[in-house]
Order: sequence, then structure tokens, then C-alpha cells
Amino acid sequence: MSGSMNHQWILKRRPVGEIADGDLVFKESPIPTPAEGEVLVRTTYLSLDPTNRIWMSDMDQYMEPMRVGDPMRSIAMGEVVSSRSARFKTGDVVMTLGSWSEFFTAPATSLSVPPKIPGVELPAIFGVFYLMGPTAYIGLIGLGAPKIGETLVVSAAAGAVGSLVGQIGKALGCRVVGIAGNRNKCDWVVDSLGFDAAINYKSEDVETALRKHCPAGVDIYFDNVGGEILDTVMGQMNLFGRIVECGLISMYNATGALPGPRNYPRILMKRLKVQGFIASDSMAQFPESYRALTHLHAAGKLKWRLHEVQGLESAASAVKLLYDGGNNGKLLVKVI
Amino acid sequence: MSGSMNHQWILKRRPVGEIADGDLVFKESPIPTPAEGEVLVRTTYLSLDPTNRIWMSDMDQYMEPMRVGDPMRSIAMGEVVSSRSARFKTGDVVMTLGSWSEFFTAPATSLSVPPKIPGVELPAIFGVFYLMGPTAYIGLIGLGAPKIGETLVVSAAAGAVGSLVGQIGKALGCRVVGIAGNRNKCDWVVDSLGFDAAINYKSEDVETALRKHCPAGVDIYFDNVGGEILDTVMGQMNLFGRIVECGLISMYNATGALPGPRNYPRILMKRLKVQGFIASDSMAQFPESYRALTHLHAAGKLKWRLHEVQGLESAASAVKLLYDGGNNGKLLVKVI
Repeated sequence: MSGSMNHQWILKRRPVGEIADGDLVFKESPIPTPAEGEVLVRTTYLSLDPTNRIWMSDMDQYMEPMRVGDPMRSIAMGEVVSSRSARFKTGDVVMTLGSWSEFFTAPATSLSVPPKIPGVELPAIFGVFYLMGPTAYIGLIGLGAPKIGETLVVSAAAGAVGSLVGQIGKALGCRVVGIAGNRNKCDWVVDSLGFDAAINYKSEDVETALRKHCPAGVDIYFDNVGGEILDTVMGQMNLFGRIVECGLISMYNATGALPGPRNYPRILMKRLKVQGFIASDSMAQFPESYRALTHLHAAGKLKWRLHEVQGLESAASAVKLLYDGGNNGKLLVKVI
Repeated sequence: MSGSMNHQWILKRRPVGEIADGDLVFKESPIPTPAEGEVLVRTTYLSLDPTNRIWMSDMDQYMEPMRVGDPMRSIAMGEVVSSRSARFKTGDVVMTLGSWSEFFTAPATSLSVPPKIPGVELPAIFGVFYLMGPTAYIGLIGLGAPKIGETLVVSAAAGAVGSLVGQIGKALGCRVVGIAGNRNKCDWVVDSLGFDAAINYKSEDVETALRKHCPAGVDIYFDNVGGEILDTVMGQMNLFGRIVECGLISMYNATGALPGPRNYPRILMKRLKVQGFIASDSMAQFPESYRALTHLHAAGKLKWRLHEVQGLESAASAVKLLYDGGNNGKLLVKVI
């Protein structure tokens, strides 16, 4: 995987249920040539994210779905190797919505420069801060509106977004209870990140555990998973509670319509606010997010784990880890 | 039903499913005596509302449920017949959360005076303006945030709240589509209230009819009914749409948990905001509501129908009309 050719993962067919071998195919092609105003980027890291499964499907979604035959869409970091724009020069590091490709061209206007977070290396800036940071920060602050002493529940608590949400919640004086899928993740969010409690949804009864760990009920639920867990938490929301609807990973592999939350009437009875959130709607608040996260990091209040997989060839098998919970930390592919 | 005794409907047992004969019993008792700071009120009108069925049940709800043995809770209007408070004198008209009783005592501090709407008689001030008006106005303006040219869908469109919501939406420049349960109601909201279209959910396929009447999708759904109709409308909500969750009448007679909306994932994908609303949370905005509704009425842009039932004895059978759609207009009991 080097020399003068490009290598890419192509969406050969849309997955039915879980991503299967053959849905994505690894292909060689010529390295593309940038047009005027574009740059040629050599990918260094890919971010693997739950949303990848949405893009592969033709479900109702928040962007245009990928087309079959496209290179697999991905959040990507890379270095400019040739530039036909005055904005970037060879060697510049850029971040963008790219693809599972060694090389790709992009309009200079579509590229971001990495946020500067003192003391943080590029892989974490890319994987933790660049998009996950604003997702957690703006979603929690803007939609969740946490207040001192409130109880915040976050699912996929050890995930890239969930782990930040919980730490921001702690910094703002909330009681924070995480929900995750194994003991290691639960221990990590409590022992290392400072969550007040964590619930292992695979081994505990979530309803009972919530009643134990949220004795005053739930004021904010930051949802990354949907499905049964969402329904259970909804049933314990307090008057004027907020549900930040940020992800539904438990539902992305479904092959048909899934049940909606049976506790929906509680939205009326407790006057809940349930709101969907995608960070890219709120780019004007990204600088505020980076400032806040920089501040938390400098104060020693922000931790993360990176789960790095080596080589572009590994991307198609690695992405499956997200849906069986096999990753420990923010999942990245180190391409070079 | 006169003379020196009081008459009341008592909640004898909680209904299972639809309200049945014997759930409420008509009883005679002594007229109560007001304590210091209280007044004795003789009921003139009762408002029958979908929420009555909630109060009778022990479902998760927005107030304390009634206790078995209590007089049936109700929004009530009456005249002060004796007063032990400096706030009210004999003959004053008052409105409050009372009960299905000829006479009741209440603390003077719990009573409201009717809003003054020039040219409107007391029964309509009580039935249309007093609580339905703020419910429609604050719910739509505050949570729905309508903008000129947006499409507003309202269910129970010919109901007390729905008919106001649609007229306020029209006054604000929205395309308004109502959903109701018979041809008469559909004709009324289009021909008399000025809705752009109405869907008879009992004879039309709601999904198809919505696509026809809302060619640009749905920006605001003011929900009074829940259930299948909610789910169907949710599936056609536009990016950044708002669902005002004001009532779930289709679900109040259920004897078990009902399915939630299968289109729930659209909340994320379209970044919808779904919010529960009970007017009594927003009493500070009641004067604004009355001012706005007065203005609309003076401009000839606000119409209503009253469906008056005679006599307190009729209340228990009349309330059932709400759940089979048998009322035409705001349902009131004229007690005297």
C-alpha cells in the first residue's frame, strides 16, 4: 500500500443488519489530481464513528446517504501533499469529511486546520477534540442546560462523546451516571473520569440500577444509543427534564422499524424537552467549545483513551468494533 | 337538584379503559361552609376536558391523581354565594379548578376572575379563553415558534385547543392543516376557521393525505392525540421541526402500555424538538395570551363553537363524548 497508486475502501453494497465481509471492498486506483482551488491530501488518520453505519444505509438520515460505489465516507486527518490553493501549502495538517482513502482531493474551502490544544498530540486533537468535543460540549450545554446538583445520565459513557459529556457534567457540578457495556468501561468512567456511578447494561437491570444511582431522578439524559435504554431512562426523567438525542447506535443495524419508546407519554406528563443534535449545525460555537475543553484539559479535568488500529486495510474490520462495543476508547485508524 | 343540599359526582372507582357507568356516582351531601379566607361558590358551568380521564386514573400524570372518593375534579365557573375573604363578595364570578359539585368552598387565593374579552359572553370566556386560550397560544408561540410560510399541523383540530391553535397559526402566516374525526369537523375548520386543509383520520389514510396537503413537509405539529397519528406526522417532520406535545387523548383509555412512535429516530436525523406543555406552568404569560386573543377576536379572526349539556346530572355521560368525538365544539355543562 504505497508507491504511486491510491488505495480506498469502496461501498460495494449497503449492509443488511451488521456490516458483513464484502459490503466494503479494498481497491487500487490512480492518485487523483487536484483541480484549481483544491489540494491533494495524504490521509494520516481516520476516525471510526457510529455514524458510519448510518451513512452506509439508505435510512432516513441527517446527510445524503453515501452512494454505492463511493469511497467509504469518513472523518479524516491528513497532510497536504500538493496544493492548488493559496490557503494551504505542502505539509499542512488538515481535517475534513474525507474518505477511507490513502489520498484524496478536496476544495481548500472544505478543510479545517486542527484546533490548538496545548499539550495535546495531533491524534487526540483529531479524535477527541475536533468534532467529538463540540458534539459533547454544545449538546450538553446548549440542549441539556445542566444546573449544579442536577443528575445527568449518559449512555455509551466510555465512548468518544459520552466520556466527554460526563466529564463536562462533573465540571459543572452535576451528579453523573454512565451506562456502558462492560466492567472495564464502567470502572474507567468512575475511577479515571470521576463519574459518580456507572451501570453495566449487559449485566445489570438498568431500571433498578438507575433508581439506585439516581435517587432524585434524572434531569438530563444525553442519549447515544436509543432503543430499550432510552425508553428506560425516559421513564425516570424528572419534571422539565431534557433529553439530548445525539445517537441511536443500538438501532443502526436494525433491518426493520424498531419500537418507539413506550414511555413517550412522560414527555407530556413531565414536560420534557427531547431534541436531536448534530454538531455540524452549530459550527459557530466550535471556538467556544475548544476554549472550554482547553480550559478543562489544563485543569486536569479531561481524560480520554485512544484505540488505534494500524493500517487502512484494517478499517473495514475495525469499524465493527463500535457496534459490539469491542473498542476501548476513541477508535482511530492510523493510515501512515 | 336544588334546595338546601349539595349534589356531586364522586369518583367511585378508577375506570378500566373507557369510563363506564358506575365509575362515577351522583351523591347528595350537605352544602359546605367556608372557613376564614374561603368563599362558597355555586357552580354555573363545568368545562369537560380530555384531561379529566387522566385525573381519574393513576397513570403517570402531571398533577396528583384524584383519590377514589373525591368529587370529580373539573375546571369550573361559578358565583360567590358567601364570602369570608375581602377579595370576593357575593355575586362575583370566579373560575378555578373545582369539581363536579353544585356548591364548593375554596380559598379565595385559588380563584381567578374571568379575563375580560370585549363582546364575548361568560360561557365562551370560561370555555374558550380562560385556559384553552393560553394553552393554544403559549404552546404554539412559545414551543412551536411558528414562522411565516411554515406548515403547521394540528390534531383534534376542531377541539377547544386545536381550533384556536389553527386560527392563531393562520393569523401568523402559516399553512395550517387540521386532523379531525368526521366530515363536519373537517368542513368547519376549513370553511369557518380558514384552515388550508383538513384530514378526516377515520376515512382517509393520514400519511397519504399529509403528503398531499403538506407538500413542503411539516414544520410544526401541535399534538393533542398521540398514538398512530403522532407517529405518522413525526415521519413527515422537516429539519428543525417542532412537536408541541399538548395532549395524548388517543392513549388515555388504554389498559396497558402502548407502542411509542416508531419514527422516533427522526428526532435525531431531522434535529426535531419535542416538548411537553401544560399551560399552568406558564401562568405569567396568561395576560399576553388574553391580549393576543382579544386582538384576534376584535379582528374577526377567532371563532369557536360551544357544545352545552344541561344539568350536573348529565356530566358523567357527557364527558364520554370527548373520547368518541361526539362533541361539536367546546364541551360545557350548564349547571344552573
